[in-house]
Amino acid sequence: MPTTRLETFADGVFAIAATLLIIDVTADAHGGALGGALAHSWPQYAAYAVSFVTIGIMWVNHHTCLELIDRADRRFLFINVALLACIAFVPFPTRLVAEHLRDGGLRAAALAYGLTMTATAICFFAFWFYAAIGRRLIAADADERMVRGISRSYLPGAPIYAGATLVALASPTASVILFAAIALFYVLESSVFVRGA
Amino acid sequence: MPTTRLETFADGVFAIAATLLIIDVTADAHGGALGGALAHSWPQYAAYAVSFVTIGIMWVNHHTCLELIDRADRRFLFINVALLACIAFVPFPTRLVAEHLRDGGLRAAALAYGLTMTATAICFFAFWFYAAIGRRLIAADADERMVRGISRSYLPGAPIYAGATLVALASPTASVILFAAIALFYVLESSVFVRGA
Amino acid sequence: MPTTRLETFADGVFAIAATLLIIDVTADAHGGALGGALAHSWPQYAAYAVSFVTIGIMWVNHHTCLELIDRADRRFLFINVALLACIAFVPFPTRLVAEHLRDGGLRAAALAYGLTMTATAICFFAFWFYAAIGRRLIAADADERMVRGISRSYLPGAPIYAGATLVALASPTASVILFAAIALFYVLESSVFVRGA
Amino acid sequence: MPTTRLETFADGVFAIAATLLIIDVTADAHGGALGGALAHSWPQYAAYAVSFVTIGIMWVNHHTCLELIDRADRRFLFINVALLACIAFVPFPTRLVAEHLRDGGLRAAALAYGLTMTATAICFFAFWFYAAIGRRLIAADADERMVRGISRSYLPGAPIYAGATLVALASPTASVILFAAIALFYVLESSVFVRGA
Repeated sequence: MPTTRLETFADGVFAIAATLLIIDVTADAHGGALGGALAHSWPQYAAYAVSFVTIGIMWVNHHTCLELIDRADRRFLFINVALLACIAFVPFPTRLVAEHLRDGGLRAAALAYGLTMTATAICFFAFWFYAAIGRRLIAADADERMVRGISRSYLPGAPIYAGATLVALASPTASVILFAAIALFYVLESSVFVRGA
Repeated sequence: MPTTRLETFADGVFAIAATLLIIDVTADAHGGALGGALAHSWPQYAAYAVSFVTIGIMWVNHHTCLELIDRADRRFLFINVALLACIAFVPFPTRLVAEHLRDGGLRAAALAYGLTMTATAICFFAFWFYAAIGRRLIAADADERMVRGISRSYLPGAPIYAGATLVALASPTASVILFAAIALFYVLESSVFVRGA
Repeated sequence: MPTTRLETFADGVFAIAATLLIIDVTADAHGGALGGALAHSWPQYAAYAVSFVTIGIMWVNHHTCLELIDRADRRFLFINVALLACIAFVPFPTRLVAEHLRDGGLRAAALAYGLTMTATAICFFAFWFYAAIGRRLIAADADERMVRGISRSYLPGAPIYAGATLVALASPTASVILFAAIALFYVLESSVFVRGA
Repeated sequence: MPTTRLETFADGVFAIAATLLIIDVTADAHGGALGGALAHSWPQYAAYAVSFVTIGIMWVNHHTCLELIDRADRRFLFINVALLACIAFVPFPTRLVAEHLRDGGLRAAALAYGLTMTATAICFFAFWFYAAIGRRLIAADADERMVRGISRSYLPGAPIYAGATLVALASPTASVILFAAIALFYVLESSVFVRGA
């Protein structure tokens, strides 16, 4: 079966997951107190921006994979459902980290974030390798170097996130810095270093 | 008329229904209490995961049907609207069951879940047989064995769910175990046993 | 310009507007009180079902129009935005009517519902006649009888809803019965009487 | 890579961002007090309508750009993600302005609105000029006059919004009138003055 509806469904989930965090952006204040309330709720805006960009990166990656894949079977659809369930969960721990950046809840929040990202990376790994091994679902005219390039770039994801999650047990602050560095690396790798595509 | 827009609309509803439950996933706690609050709200995560997967399975099945169907008439569009209304309702009783797993509200929650799933199964039945009887909306080149295979697999759905719902009157716990077994069976049947696509 | 993206955007709004009311379906109760709470909140389920079906009918009608329309200009896109803004508003007054069916707020709720439906009917009228007059945006191969059939069926919408809204000033109950009768007529007209399409 | 999935994702975000504000439209009142509550919450309806139309205009403009663009690279996808993050944020400051129209919070609300619109205009600028400079992503058959027309119309957006935002420091009311005038100008420019397309 072709991948068209998989893409429509996935794009819907990506769009909703990215946008939904705006519901949590609020500023209830009377009259002149609004300015202070807006300034005070900056972690909400940060969480919104970080989630949107994170999900945006995942959407770009999902997009890139599906350009090389030209068919789907039922198992692939289920892997995709599991992947999307992880992705749509991302805004929740992102908000937790933003809200607890400066209090004693940061360890729990960083663990929640790290576990979610590790699970997402595992699903992305399963998603890609299910399609790529033996070129099971890969388009006949897909460039083998691009397929291998993606395979190489997906291998370290889960261990890196699992490692950063373990760091949270020792130092939550260090793990958050690590998570930010990983995200930054993915943005740069996807948009600056990579030529073509 | 072709089925393209039916699919876009349906994919939108599936995507929103699956994703929306994340709104209910919350953890309000100050500082060090966050870890405990996260651990305590596991029924919310379970409900999110179960809903997402349930709706994912329904999306895969809807998808499979529409691959054999190549046109729609207005009555079929309305049946589809009714089916989607049932599917978008599923997250609500799923959350009820998760929240009342260990208190006296389990009977009511299991009944709500069972009635929703029975109604959904009836709509799926109507959806498929309206299209399949006399191959009314089936594509000319669709394999008759696949059409019959789907017809066979859709016949028992509504009676099975109705039966498990009745069990809830006697033993809510037994009915919840039955519901889980049915869901597991559908996942396995769709993804493991079935060969091909 | 072609109408594809108009359809994607519209289908997204339809899907969200139809599904969003599920957020309002809640049942907060502890333990054994859940059964009673579920039974008591039936107006929420009724509002959900009525909204979903109403928006479903509008989606079918929008769909039917766009099958005869094969291009769009910027003004048509704006009319479409206004129409979608009305449609996405429908769940709100629908819920008001359901919640106030048996108290003194029914007049205000019926007026809100009637005004929303009148505005929606006016936008649908503008949407269709902007495209149909002089076959401005109608596909060259569209059947003139179908175009005229739709034009005829869209003429009475706004006056009928405006009339039923005025009735709410005298008798809210009578206007709600009228609204139900109009909705039922549209379902029957679309799905039972009409052959073909 | 083609722009199809960019459009599906974008249309999803546009549809959700436009529709989501309906969640904030509420009227909790018992019995006869409903009429007053509905009349009193008009800023909610105004915010809903203004947001929906603003996002509708942006959707039309995004649509117009993508008709001339026939391919995307990864950087363009990221610019698009940033643009969509801004657009999905618009309903929040719009509601703030509506709620604080007549109290001391108008300055903060107008600044929030102005900053959001300035950021959105900058992203729209980056979105278009990234594609248009040297016709990097422009379709080979796209009319050069249309490309230049869009370039000309996108140049003043960010400075105009930045200027109106600065006005809010001196007079919040004046800046809100300016914002309304800018929005009105865009509607008229897009739908009345412009011939063709």
